[in-house]
Amino acid sequence: MTNKTRPVRVEFHGKTIEIGGGAVAVIAGPCSIESREHLSETARGVKDLGTCFLRGGIYKMRTQADSFQGLGTNAFGFIKEVKKEVGLPLVSEITDPRQLSDFADAVEMFQVGSRNMYNYELLKELGTTKKPVLLKRAFAATVDEWIKAADYVIKGGNENVILCERGIRTFEPTTRNTMDLNSVAYLKAHTSFPVIVDPSHGTGRPELIGPLSLAAVAVGADGLIIEVHPRPREALSDAHQALSFAQFGEIMGNVKKVAAALGRELVK
Amino acid sequence: MTNKTRPVRVEFHGKTIEIGGGAVAVIAGPCSIESREHLSETARGVKDLGTCFLRGGIYKMRTQADSFQGLGTNAFGFIKEVKKEVGLPLVSEITDPRQLSDFADAVEMFQVGSRNMYNYELLKELGTTKKPVLLKRAFAATVDEWIKAADYVIKGGNENVILCERGIRTFEPTTRNTMDLNSVAYLKAHTSFPVIVDPSHGTGRPELIGPLSLAAVAVGADGLIIEVHPRPREALSDAHQALSFAQFGEIMGNVKKVAAALGRELVK
Amino acid sequence: MTNKTRPVRVEFHGKTIEIGGGAVAVIAGPCSIESREHLSETARGVKDLGTCFLRGGIYKMRTQADSFQGLGTNAFGFIKEVKKEVGLPLVSEITDPRQLSDFADAVEMFQVGSRNMYNYELLKELGTTKKPVLLKRAFAATVDEWIKAADYVIKGGNENVILCERGIRTFEPTTRNTMDLNSVAYLKAHTSFPVIVDPSHGTGRPELIGPLSLAAVAVGADGLIIEVHPRPREALSDAHQALSFAQFGEIMGNVKKVAAALGRELVK
Amino acid sequence: MTNKTRPVRVEFHGKTIEIGGGAVAVIAGPCSIESREHLSETARGVKDLGTCFLRGGIYKMRTQADSFQGLGTNAFGFIKEVKKEVGLPLVSEITDPRQLSDFADAVEMFQVGSRNMYNYELLKELGTTKKPVLLKRAFAATVDEWIKAADYVIKGGNENVILCERGIRTFEPTTRNTMDLNSVAYLKAHTSFPVIVDPSHGTGRPELIGPLSLAAVAVGADGLIIEVHPRPREALSDAHQALSFAQFGEIMGNVKKVAAALGRELVK
Repeated sequence: MTNKTRPVRVEFHGKTIEIGGGAVAVIAGPCSIESREHLSETARGVKDLGTCFLRGGIYKMRTQADSFQGLGTNAFGFIKEVKKEVGLPLVSEITDPRQLSDFADAVEMFQVGSRNMYNYELLKELGTTKKPVLLKRAFAATVDEWIKAADYVIKGGNENVILCERGIRTFEPTTRNTMDLNSVAYLKAHTSFPVIVDPSHGTGRPELIGPLSLAAVAVGADGLIIEVHPRPREALSDAHQALSFAQFGEIMGNVKKVAAALGRELVK
Repeated sequence: MTNKTRPVRVEFHGKTIEIGGGAVAVIAGPCSIESREHLSETARGVKDLGTCFLRGGIYKMRTQADSFQGLGTNAFGFIKEVKKEVGLPLVSEITDPRQLSDFADAVEMFQVGSRNMYNYELLKELGTTKKPVLLKRAFAATVDEWIKAADYVIKGGNENVILCERGIRTFEPTTRNTMDLNSVAYLKAHTSFPVIVDPSHGTGRPELIGPLSLAAVAVGADGLIIEVHPRPREALSDAHQALSFAQFGEIMGNVKKVAAALGRELVK
Repeated sequence: MTNKTRPVRVEFHGKTIEIGGGAVAVIAGPCSIESREHLSETARGVKDLGTCFLRGGIYKMRTQADSFQGLGTNAFGFIKEVKKEVGLPLVSEITDPRQLSDFADAVEMFQVGSRNMYNYELLKELGTTKKPVLLKRAFAATVDEWIKAADYVIKGGNENVILCERGIRTFEPTTRNTMDLNSVAYLKAHTSFPVIVDPSHGTGRPELIGPLSLAAVAVGADGLIIEVHPRPREALSDAHQALSFAQFGEIMGNVKKVAAALGRELVK
Repeated sequence: MTNKTRPVRVEFHGKTIEIGGGAVAVIAGPCSIESREHLSETARGVKDLGTCFLRGGIYKMRTQADSFQGLGTNAFGFIKEVKKEVGLPLVSEITDPRQLSDFADAVEMFQVGSRNMYNYELLKELGTTKKPVLLKRAFAATVDEWIKAADYVIKGGNENVILCERGIRTFEPTTRNTMDLNSVAYLKAHTSFPVIVDPSHGTGRPELIGPLSLAAVAVGADGLIIEVHPRPREALSDAHQALSFAQFGEIMGNVKKVAAALGRELVK
């Protein structure tokens, strides 16, 4: 099988990070950014363990209107400083087209969350930029609808779309979602999108994140996005599925082994 | 069973239309508004057959970026005239918080489509108005998430939320969606929201819209929303599920019979 | 719509009970037959309220190997006596082709449960008899597979198949299953099978059985099958969804009203 | 993670094949056994490529009553000869408790197919033997129900149960089923059952069987079961998902690499 994937490249302080070029890109960080110290500690921790990109929520989509909704614009100042100090670019979720100008300055990649995959007005707006877009699959989106959502960004003029499989909704209650690795293999065989897998949301159970990370690499995914927190039990959101540095480090060791077996390295 | 539903009222040219007060409200009209003549002809047709509210898309959410996306702002002028001439208020889908001020003048009820049920920024914005919001269930939203989405509008200050069941996504390919009337009965028994049923999208097959309309009334729904087109085969969107005036009229006759058997009338 | 349904007829002590001939057939009784007295009391109670057929489990399919599995062959003797005394035929679930000869003498209709819809060896065996077969839909069977399962009985030589919609498995946790009334309308429009609806299993919540019973009649179902117990809280299986005589009686009153509105009676 | 799996052992002509003991067991062969020559050719082919167990349908479960249903008892004679000549034991699907005595002599492992996972009478009967049972997950069985189905065999006295994930039924039409590798990781972490994965049925697309085989090994599965045919296009059943020897050989090469990376070998 020839790899037809068209890689997406991110420039950050003189460095180029390529996703979809053969190497495995691991994105990690907290569900929500809680403070300057929290972000800095997490960023350093995951960088030391082999991560090439930082994740972290600034505006959170929460099912309940009165749950913690993220720090919002207050966080932009220190986010830029921490990214530069640690040397990792950031991907964060955008939830409203009106956030675009503020966001453009704070992140190196826009994340569109599952709840907004069908928010075509937001996707069109992201098509007017050149920043990469990490497009998560909606809870019950077919692969066909997911590709067509990506087309809204592309037709707007921005070809830098990465798809992210994060589990779909099924009848099975044992796991938070059902990870659909069939779709990852299908997208790799039939489209040119880089594909990232999110085993944190895809399983919702810490003990399953490791096995599913290895499965994602073996099935051909271009990378992983994993929730890590210095002290998982104290996390302000998704505490039940965040990994400690120790747990994350163990997974990274095995990810490297499986990647190497298939002739792949980690993106640095 | 005592009816605990809190009705939503719409004032229109000196008339009050109440949804959730016991009578069955039938909303009908085209998927998309195609022209002044098209809207006028459809509105007169459905009004004569017992409809109390007009539906019609101004901005359409389409899975494919290059499908017909609706007339947009060009239509606002004639829409206001047609509504007044025919004497029917309008519900139409809003897809972007930035459309709010324009829309507020053209519609008597905002529709939030299935694709935007989780678009919390849009819901918060609708909470700042007093206009009723028809909140459609997302393709795979649990009843609990649907209620919590409604809370985003209510916590913004707008209590006028009507829920709309439009079918959920399941493994079954025979029908476009699987109509979940269990959820309608559950919402009527356990919440105070008025609940409307959309058998056009819920089945996607014209021959099933009649039977499911009757089932919806029998299960206790506060109303129906049905796609009608003067010449269904010529419709610019959803042509396969639009009903002709004749088909719609036959359904309305049976809807009245089932409603009457349970001591209910049609909203006029 | 012309009714193309081919009715199934059951002869019982000189009386003919027709299912699928236009009138609404209500089948009721306990989940499991618990004793002679229990069966007799339930049968009299439901007959007085308008039931034309008795249901009651002899062999129960239970997910857990150590749950109550039914009285089995011990019950055959008194079952025949009670049926004759009360004047109601019985439908009961068969779970093994080797039970056929014993069963043939004790029931007027075989029920194939959801767990056995794909048990083609059992279906072929039932094709060798002339007794009607009530074929429940499997948890995730498509309508197409369900029809093809019925074909196994028909090709064996027995055309007396009635389909029973009992809810399908979806992502929604609020109700035990999701009742798929779309499929009922589809089967009535496109096949000649009589179709029965089971709102007890289809909802799993007593307060929803009434509304869904009315919806089933309105959508065009040929009948209902409902779990009733003299003292629901003491039931040995499915206690949470059994109705009392009072609850069942109230539903029957409304079922008659909706049926009458559509020109239908109850099967006596 | 300590491996708590309790291995299942099969004795065959003086050799012991262990499934669940750490090494990866690959089971392969045709969907249906078509003739002596066909079985012999396939068995030799897959053995040369590293398979430790032969699969092959004798009685086929077919959705349509008039599809090819397998050779049945006619095949028992030559099956025993071929197995001995080639040196591979056989797993084949049993569909009726009455087949047990015949089958016991022809197979080294009973397969219970997805359609019969809830056929508790069959499971109880298999509990009376000591032969291993490969229990496939039903189309929409929860993990909990699947484990409880296995309990029917175990409580009958037979502890040799291997679970087989073969994809579940979801809304996604791109693949025949959705492979649920979350469930495999969950079963490995929380139960002692060996778990096998079937990527042939789990994807239904030949080009995805390789990637999903690697994912299954990486996620921790104890083995694979794959459909192979000397000339896939001529297969009498499941022709669209059978692999050629060349395709199967390529997959086996990669399976060995991923297994080795995680310190595992292939069962010989």
